[in-house]
Amino acid sequence: MAQRILVLGGGFAGMFAAKEIKKKLGTHVRVELISDQNYFVFQPLLPEVGAGSINAVQAVSPLRFLLKGITVRKARVENVDFERRVVTVFQGVQRRPTEVPYDQLVIALGQGSDLSRMPGLSDHALTMKNLEDARRLRAHVIERLEHADITNLPEVKREALTFCVIGAGFSGVETVGEMKEMIDRSLKYYPNIKPEEVRTIVVEFAPRVLNELPEKLGAYAAEKLKARGIEIMLNTGVKSATGTRLITSTGEEIPTRTIVATIGNAPLPVVQRMDLPKAHGRIKVDRNLNVEGHVNVWALGDCALIPMKDGAEARDDFAPPTAQFAVREARHLGNNMAASLRAKTMTPFKYKSQGALASLGAHKGVAQVWGLNLSGLPAWLLWRAYYLSFLPSFPTKLRVLTNWIYDLFTPRSVVQLTSGADRGVRFVHYREGDRVFETGTRADGFYTIVSGEVELTYTDDAGQQVTKVIGPGGHFGERLLLGHRRRSGTVKALSDCKIMVIAREDFVKLAEGFPLMRDYFQGHMKAVYGIDWHSEEAEQKAAG
Amino acid sequence: MAQRILVLGGGFAGMFAAKEIKKKLGTHVRVELISDQNYFVFQPLLPEVGAGSINAVQAVSPLRFLLKGITVRKARVENVDFERRVVTVFQGVQRRPTEVPYDQLVIALGQGSDLSRMPGLSDHALTMKNLEDARRLRAHVIERLEHADITNLPEVKREALTFCVIGAGFSGVETVGEMKEMIDRSLKYYPNIKPEEVRTIVVEFAPRVLNELPEKLGAYAAEKLKARGIEIMLNTGVKSATGTRLITSTGEEIPTRTIVATIGNAPLPVVQRMDLPKAHGRIKVDRNLNVEGHVNVWALGDCALIPMKDGAEARDDFAPPTAQFAVREARHLGNNMAASLRAKTMTPFKYKSQGALASLGAHKGVAQVWGLNLSGLPAWLLWRAYYLSFLPSFPTKLRVLTNWIYDLFTPRSVVQLTSGADRGVRFVHYREGDRVFETGTRADGFYTIVSGEVELTYTDDAGQQVTKVIGPGGHFGERLLLGHRRRSGTVKALSDCKIMVIAREDFVKLAEGFPLMRDYFQGHMKAVYGIDWHSEEAEQKAAG
Repeated sequence: MAQRILVLGGGFAGMFAAKEIKKKLGTHVRVELISDQNYFVFQPLLPEVGAGSINAVQAVSPLRFLLKGITVRKARVENVDFERRVVTVFQGVQRRPTEVPYDQLVIALGQGSDLSRMPGLSDHALTMKNLEDARRLRAHVIERLEHADITNLPEVKREALTFCVIGAGFSGVETVGEMKEMIDRSLKYYPNIKPEEVRTIVVEFAPRVLNELPEKLGAYAAEKLKARGIEIMLNTGVKSATGTRLITSTGEEIPTRTIVATIGNAPLPVVQRMDLPKAHGRIKVDRNLNVEGHVNVWALGDCALIPMKDGAEARDDFAPPTAQFAVREARHLGNNMAASLRAKTMTPFKYKSQGALASLGAHKGVAQVWGLNLSGLPAWLLWRAYYLSFLPSFPTKLRVLTNWIYDLFTPRSVVQLTSGADRGVRFVHYREGDRVFETGTRADGFYTIVSGEVELTYTDDAGQQVTKVIGPGGHFGERLLLGHRRRSGTVKALSDCKIMVIAREDFVKLAEGFPLMRDYFQGHMKAVYGIDWHSEEAEQKAAG
Repeated sequence: MAQRILVLGGGFAGMFAAKEIKKKLGTHVRVELISDQNYFVFQPLLPEVGAGSINAVQAVSPLRFLLKGITVRKARVENVDFERRVVTVFQGVQRRPTEVPYDQLVIALGQGSDLSRMPGLSDHALTMKNLEDARRLRAHVIERLEHADITNLPEVKREALTFCVIGAGFSGVETVGEMKEMIDRSLKYYPNIKPEEVRTIVVEFAPRVLNELPEKLGAYAAEKLKARGIEIMLNTGVKSATGTRLITSTGEEIPTRTIVATIGNAPLPVVQRMDLPKAHGRIKVDRNLNVEGHVNVWALGDCALIPMKDGAEARDDFAPPTAQFAVREARHLGNNMAASLRAKTMTPFKYKSQGALASLGAHKGVAQVWGLNLSGLPAWLLWRAYYLSFLPSFPTKLRVLTNWIYDLFTPRSVVQLTSGADRGVRFVHYREGDRVFETGTRADGFYTIVSGEVELTYTDDAGQQVTKVIGPGGHFGERLLLGHRRRSGTVKALSDCKIMVIAREDFVKLAEGFPLMRDYFQGHMKAVYGIDWHSEEAEQKAAG
């Protein structure tokens, strides 16, 4: 019977590995690819999606279009039983697990991100890992422009118009460059925003931008970004973040409502759970891309630690986590798997980078290819041509090209498609002195203090001003159960705080549906406000 | 000083009213429009967005592009103080209210929907009211195809491949037609789905489809839909719905995971709160479009009840809630407001429909225009041309046209962009005998029974099978706090049930962050499972 080859992951590494294996081994094998998204996303284009210079659908191709003759399974990988040679997955919304058996397993799941080292950052920063992130960024930036255009509060306007990107590697530089272009092109539709009111900042821990490229190109990129009004803060790390502040390692407090973190790569939980040899959270393979001690398990791409020479130790001795290497690793893996299945000799992976490309927005780019340094428009065109060459079919290429040409002479749309509706339970961070909310503001949720202290001030029924200090475990904002749509008190942070917020709609359901909560709040509303809170009534009021 | 004219709502009625007023009154007035979205959506195209035949961005235009010289404020209207002549809004994410004063107020907020009359429907049906709905529908349908292609369970496959639309008016017919075309064109990428396994059903309470059109065109549409394999259930209402069933008024149980409700128009809460004369939830205006008793307040579009003759009483005596009428009402309002401000005589609104158009998908349509009945391709082309004529600028028209032409000869993309990630607190409905979950399935959340009874079966530590009946207020699924990723018991509905589900991630945060919950679950886990549940440990496990 044909060997069952199972590829986990649908990014550059997984998609190309499946393709190469099928190409090398043809009908001798059955190849299946498992991905939690049903599309391949051209990751380097995410910043352009984030800036609306291309559409989300143009940056992706359905895996089923790309992988003819290969089974595509849209599912989340839960775990692998290497003994029984079975992968357990959850398919779609289904809660029932499905077992997928394999003879050869290829792991190409990539990396996740972890911002938890910097307090507040994971709760307040946007990331640029996947397509959803890119779309969210675009909607977020437009929302800030809409708000800045109409607010009467100078402080709010300043926060809304300050855009920070953390990290000045490829992703950070492209994100800040594209974001700036989008803002510049959109300003004509926002009559109350002056160009000089917009601040765009990129914060980088290293002493220069684009560490991956030669110094000369990095300097060129920095110069171009500065010329367009982008501030570059070098030798600067991030200490913490709140909903309105970014605090740097140098102690500076930047008033901002937009933080994009392009740093903090970390292993995915599913890879962490795998019982395989690992180093720095990545799966250890030999130079043949075979996982140590598992003859039928392979790994490549960002989740694998691939030595480029025997006795590899230094960082440069291992393959870097880039798309270019992933594609080459995939080809190599196809060859080695074919050799292995035919009992022939495998060859060790080696590859030298053919160069690097970065888009800076506004039709500028930097590139180092085949030993040549390019910059400006030629580099940008090369970058676009490189992407076009990747697209699956001629009609798709033509469609994307047409849209790019239109983008040159039509206004960039400022449609804000994704709504930023707050749902569920989330954590928010405040700095000492921050106002959490004030009298008259919209009652958006129920707040419980996780750490820190706040001061609550309100006027009681007798007209007396009352002040209370609330510490960890204390809560406020429960009056929304009475159908109140506005705050009747002011809350200020007395120290740095972490607060759990249950969104209004979810809190009302919870207080109605979970008896423990219902009983508690019935007693609480009686004791504190002297009000009989009957659930039906409150529900009706809340619905109105 | 120039009169301040404030328009509430950015749909057909509001957008065109703002435009017409500006055109008529020019620099004599300051016109401002408030909308909670920053774009105008061409509502009749939503079904095509839902089917991916056009992109979301092609169905919308930024209000700022369309309304030159008019201030656009992206904000949610909270309430109107007709005495003080002030509208209170919440701007963007801001919780602080903003007051916007006016001299003349135009209310064009449209309608919402209310499915609460049919148990389970509002929790389990998709709607087709806005762009977000359309995008959600597309992602939902693709998810069902992905799942049907890989599942081994015939029952699940049958449910996944049955698509129901409720209502066979314009919106329902277009939705079912476009959805069927999308599925038909996508099937070649899903090798395990046979065309005959797909069921597409439209359920209509009336005895025929497209009640708005002459009988002949309705019959033509029905015939075309049937020829393409769409089932039409006439004289059939909806009784209730669950996550896997649609129960009709005739008692039929349709196994389905896709219900699109195009019925159930209802007044928006914000309109309900307005202290104005109303009938059937709509604002009563006179034939001049002036709200009764408020000389400077006007209303039009779907939120207004507009008499077309004196002493109007029958349904046909009032303007129907269609885009065509809204546009004409807007023009009339512009004239009347100009007359009113110049102390001239206003004229009563009257208009006769110029016809109606519906797309059936697969390049077919039906139309009645200027007394002519058209069907098939000509009607479909007319429909597209009509839309193109609405688009704001020549480059945009060209861009949309190009994309339509591409759609004719390139495959329809099956990329599933929106993720169906469950967040927050929601209600789900089960029918007697339904399995809520079973041993080994993914632990997706914490369940509390709102009404009905379930039976929980599990094997205890001694290997004994234990059965428990749980009624209202009872809960299950809390073992996910211990880091369990799978269910260790089976739950079946003993009667029709309504259950509150708190999504896994939100529940873990809640049980950690809210002391009442933490204490309760610490005691509960000890009493029931004999386990010391320490929050940090559970958090780590859950994170792992």
